[in-house]
Amino acid sequence: MSKPERPFDEELKDLKEKLLEMASRAEEQIGLAVRSLRDRKREQACEVLDREEAINRLDIEVDEMAMRMLALRQPMAADLRFITAAMKISSDLERIGDLAVNIAERTLELLKFPQLKPLIDIPRMAELAQGMVRDALNSFVNRDADLARNVVLRDDEVDQLNQQIFRELLTYMMEDASTIPRAVDLILVGRHLERIADHATNIGEDVIYMVKGKTIKHHIEEGRFTGLAGCPEKK
Amino acid sequence: MSKPERPFDEELKDLKEKLLEMASRAEEQIGLAVRSLRDRKREQACEVLDREEAINRLDIEVDEMAMRMLALRQPMAADLRFITAAMKISSDLERIGDLAVNIAERTLELLKFPQLKPLIDIPRMAELAQGMVRDALNSFVNRDADLARNVVLRDDEVDQLNQQIFRELLTYMMEDASTIPRAVDLILVGRHLERIADHATNIGEDVIYMVKGKTIKHHIEEGRFTGLAGCPEKK
Repeated sequence: MSKPERPFDEELKDLKEKLLEMASRAEEQIGLAVRSLRDRKREQACEVLDREEAINRLDIEVDEMAMRMLALRQPMAADLRFITAAMKISSDLERIGDLAVNIAERTLELLKFPQLKPLIDIPRMAELAQGMVRDALNSFVNRDADLARNVVLRDDEVDQLNQQIFRELLTYMMEDASTIPRAVDLILVGRHLERIADHATNIGEDVIYMVKGKTIKHHIEEGRFTGLAGCPEKK
Repeated sequence: MSKPERPFDEELKDLKEKLLEMASRAEEQIGLAVRSLRDRKREQACEVLDREEAINRLDIEVDEMAMRMLALRQPMAADLRFITAAMKISSDLERIGDLAVNIAERTLELLKFPQLKPLIDIPRMAELAQGMVRDALNSFVNRDADLARNVVLRDDEVDQLNQQIFRELLTYMMEDASTIPRAVDLILVGRHLERIADHATNIGEDVIYMVKGKTIKHHIEEGRFTGLAGCPEKK
């Protein structure tokens, strides 16, 4: 590795821009995959598959850029946290891209059969998840812990919508066995969207850690089991 | 942050040990969750929920240890790659722990109903996934790229087993609608195990990058869409 020639601030700016580009591509992929499902457009689903590679390439570029900065700049405190957060966020965005591809794959499968029902909740869930990804990245580049916290809190709404979709599709399956393969595919699409929102939540948690220097990871989840699972209370 | 007092090698050893402990806990959680499902033991599923917090705590500890080493030691080349890999691996292990909890949650739901069928393939899939997690971590601590590559290749076997489970459960649902809620829960357990194997694969890929200094991420996936999806070939 040669000595860096550009000011550190410019390198940080490049890193931010690359992550923003990744996020905007990931967000587009979610939208495209769900629109192709809603509107039954095969070519759009194929386009999602085609576009995946660009996000994967950006993930590698962010990683290499971050490693180079860690090695050559030996940053301290806030900058160190910013760069390590960037590496984690890049992984999350890459997996969001994978999940959009999974949705497109389900779509291609579903398009072999007649439409089960007009889709309302799944596109709504996709919009929520896209908004979370967008705001998570904005909270990162602006080091905005409040916005990051807001993203984390929105995860519940997505989970509830997914539960609702799941229950509705169960009733379809119970009433008419011929709907089962399609209903299962739609349940999986719901799960993929839920996982996309989880990754946005991870990003939000990393941003809060980066800004505050302390972790909230795993705290927000507290009490998620109490009562619900019917297990004895923890000591 | 105060100046480090212990030799760097010892700190690296601590980091390795913490990750090994995390991995062995994650592996145990997978086993416990799937045994509770197979043997219909409610208390074991509750135990999985109870034990999650220890893994989350280790994830935070690894992160803080790694950040401290990056800041105070300013490591170069191989050590830098080792420490950043440790941070990524820690996230993967934490998510594996989450997925084991998801399996335990599905189990608690399934235990409300009579058994759908004796489980053979799901425990088999769990064993494969556990082996992948174990070997992925061994490849990390021994910087063994061959073992890491072997882990990555085993992912296909898990995927195939999951496909097989999925297809079998579909036939149950088609034949008897009363099995649908249970079959869907088992399909989700299969997906959780598949995702656990994906995280082990991510770890394997990170180890190869760490050892070879170049990434194989996203290359092994090449051709996964060709033909399969019926989309036009990429230019």
